[in-house]
Amino acid sequence: LTQTERNVKTYELALIPGDGIGVDVTSAAMAVVETAAARHGFGINSQQFDWSCAHYLETGAMMPEDGIETLRRFDAILLGAVGWPQTVPDSVSLHGLLLPIRKAFTQYANIRPHRLLPGVQGPLKADAFDILCIRENTEGEYSGAGGRVHQGTLNEVATEVAIFTRAGVERILRFAFDQARSRRGHVTSVTKSNAQKHSMVFWDEMTRLVAQDYPDVTVDMMHIDAMAARMVMAPESLDVVVASNLFGDILTDLGAAIQGGLGFAASANICPDRSGPSMFEPVHGSAPDIAGKGIANPIAAIWSAAMMLDHLGETAAAQAILSAIEAATAKGIGTRPGSHSTDDITTAILAALKD
Amino acid sequence: LTQTERNVKTYELALIPGDGIGVDVTSAAMAVVETAAARHGFGINSQQFDWSCAHYLETGAMMPEDGIETLRRFDAILLGAVGWPQTVPDSVSLHGLLLPIRKAFTQYANIRPHRLLPGVQGPLKADAFDILCIRENTEGEYSGAGGRVHQGTLNEVATEVAIFTRAGVERILRFAFDQARSRRGHVTSVTKSNAQKHSMVFWDEMTRLVAQDYPDVTVDMMHIDAMAARMVMAPESLDVVVASNLFGDILTDLGAAIQGGLGFAASANICPDRSGPSMFEPVHGSAPDIAGKGIANPIAAIWSAAMMLDHLGETAAAQAILSAIEAATAKGIGTRPGSHSTDDITTAILAALKD
Ligand SMILES: CC(C)[C@H](C(=O)O)[C@@H](O)C(=O)O
Ligand SMILES: CC(C)[C@H](C(=O)O)[C@@H](O)C(=O)O
Repeated sequence: LTQTERNVKTYELALIPGDGIGVDVTSAAMAVVETAAARHGFGINSQQFDWSCAHYLETGAMMPEDGIETLRRFDAILLGAVGWPQTVPDSVSLHGLLLPIRKAFTQYANIRPHRLLPGVQGPLKADAFDILCIRENTEGEYSGAGGRVHQGTLNEVATEVAIFTRAGVERILRFAFDQARSRRGHVTSVTKSNAQKHSMVFWDEMTRLVAQDYPDVTVDMMHIDAMAARMVMAPESLDVVVASNLFGDILTDLGAAIQGGLGFAASANICPDRSGPSMFEPVHGSAPDIAGKGIANPIAAIWSAAMMLDHLGETAAAQAILSAIEAATAKGIGTRPGSHSTDDITTAILAALKD
Repeated sequence: LTQTERNVKTYELALIPGDGIGVDVTSAAMAVVETAAARHGFGINSQQFDWSCAHYLETGAMMPEDGIETLRRFDAILLGAVGWPQTVPDSVSLHGLLLPIRKAFTQYANIRPHRLLPGVQGPLKADAFDILCIRENTEGEYSGAGGRVHQGTLNEVATEVAIFTRAGVERILRFAFDQARSRRGHVTSVTKSNAQKHSMVFWDEMTRLVAQDYPDVTVDMMHIDAMAARMVMAPESLDVVVASNLFGDILTDLGAAIQGGLGFAASANICPDRSGPSMFEPVHGSAPDIAGKGIANPIAAIWSAAMMLDHLGETAAAQAILSAIEAATAKGIGTRPGSHSTDDITTAILAALKD
């Protein structure tokens, strides 16, 4: 090793392609990350894990028992997609791989940017919006608490218990207000406190409390129903949006829709105190219908990888990747379903990156 | 009374204008209903109740203690809007008037049609959709169960318990499948069973069970996040949509958005076995910002009144009102916020009705 090579900062990266098109898009994203690393003077040491539904069918588990411990030593996780409902129920695959990682490493902030890339036609007439959704990622409506009694009888009752903790709500709100400071200084906090009078009234109270520490950030509070309408009718009025696990889940799929589809929706599952690795993944799923055809759009995965480099401190490389994506879509590459193959899109982005 | 007058079928109607623009739009709707009644040979005997936030400030209650008993003898309820958050918290006003009526009369089916009226510009590029959302209206995520412990401390935990009963889920699904039979024969059932594994898995099971009794109806099952995206990306692919209280709430505001705004969103709270009155109300709220200015769009309220007449069996009158609304909007009347006053729009619809 030369002196230079030895001094290069190198990141340890866990790669989990997962199922279906997850495999195609993570391989595209890795090609882009490696090119960016070479040009921006850092190293990537990646280790791939074949944890997936196929792995489940072979071994009876989505990941080994020590899977979480194995991941702990990495600087970041890049994930493709999890789920293959034809052979493994989602309730098994997601609860056996994706969701435990989010919880185990306290990746409580799920960040999803929504804006139109140049050249992409969205379903809305509106095209000038730039929204950052911050979704609570560890508790709330997806706590898993609840149960069923008199199952299978005419008297059956099923409950689902949403659980919100002070720590959980406060930290995600602070995270959102912090994000707003480096953007346009506005937070919209989304609840449904007129109908859910325990959990959502609590969230509203916490929003008012946290807002006091951010006099420089403006805040509005909206109900999820009105908010869903606003995403469609006035998306340009939004800056940072913060919401519970369920509401954030819904709003970010809606955000993906208005930005032209899931092919463009990137996401980061952030562990803000860095006590464990953060995880980066496109919002889309494994897409069994187009898996293995080489036509999946890798842009969401590549954008997610750029968010990863940004999180690791490689902001110039992250910015260069985003610019390369934009250069490609501005030329119409990858902007419409089926117009280009996964390879074509990746090649165009790599070329723009080398420019 | 002449013989004819004595033989005219007369409906007993409870009118609750409520707050803000609720007053303007119900008066517009009543004018249309009365004209339709005169032309179609039936009578309307209406009694008005001033139950509202103003009533609360005077009396300490949104409605009298025997309010529900008073309403029981009516054939239908026409409601404007409830809520005036400046003086009465929503958690008081809604839980003191709107929500108890829905529950007391087992108005378990909240029906909301979403399509573009002629001349109305929606926010989507897509314009050819015709969706009927059926929202469960009595239980689920808005059950009110749950609570808070260690309130106000750093250890606070808030819970919200969604409660789904076999009776509640089965009846709303059957209602939706029945509706599909008189439309295009397709039902989309919306859950989030990959993350809410008690309540939503139960709903999915019930969907499969009920579907067996409707071999002539096709069904698909979607998660709420993907569904929100689909409403925006492919609304024309939807016919009847059935969802829980919360999911239906969100999807119908989204439906209102894609149909051009809340000014066009009508709704019916139906008690299908007619053991009590059904209630008809525009989806919009009291809109404090434009209340009393005479510029509220009455179309949603008038459309809701048409749904009321349809429910009462006056299908020709209901159809005539809808045609009159369409005749007005086709001329550009009431199609854009602020373009016409409440009176102008009502006058145009009345004129079309008399044509
Ligand atoms: C697959 C599913 C459990 C997941 C979620 O709801 O968290 C997905 O929809 C997402 O948004 O990341
Ligand atoms: C006002 C509110 C409680 C109500 C609801 O959520 O039911 C409204 O949003 C609606 O959709 O009718």
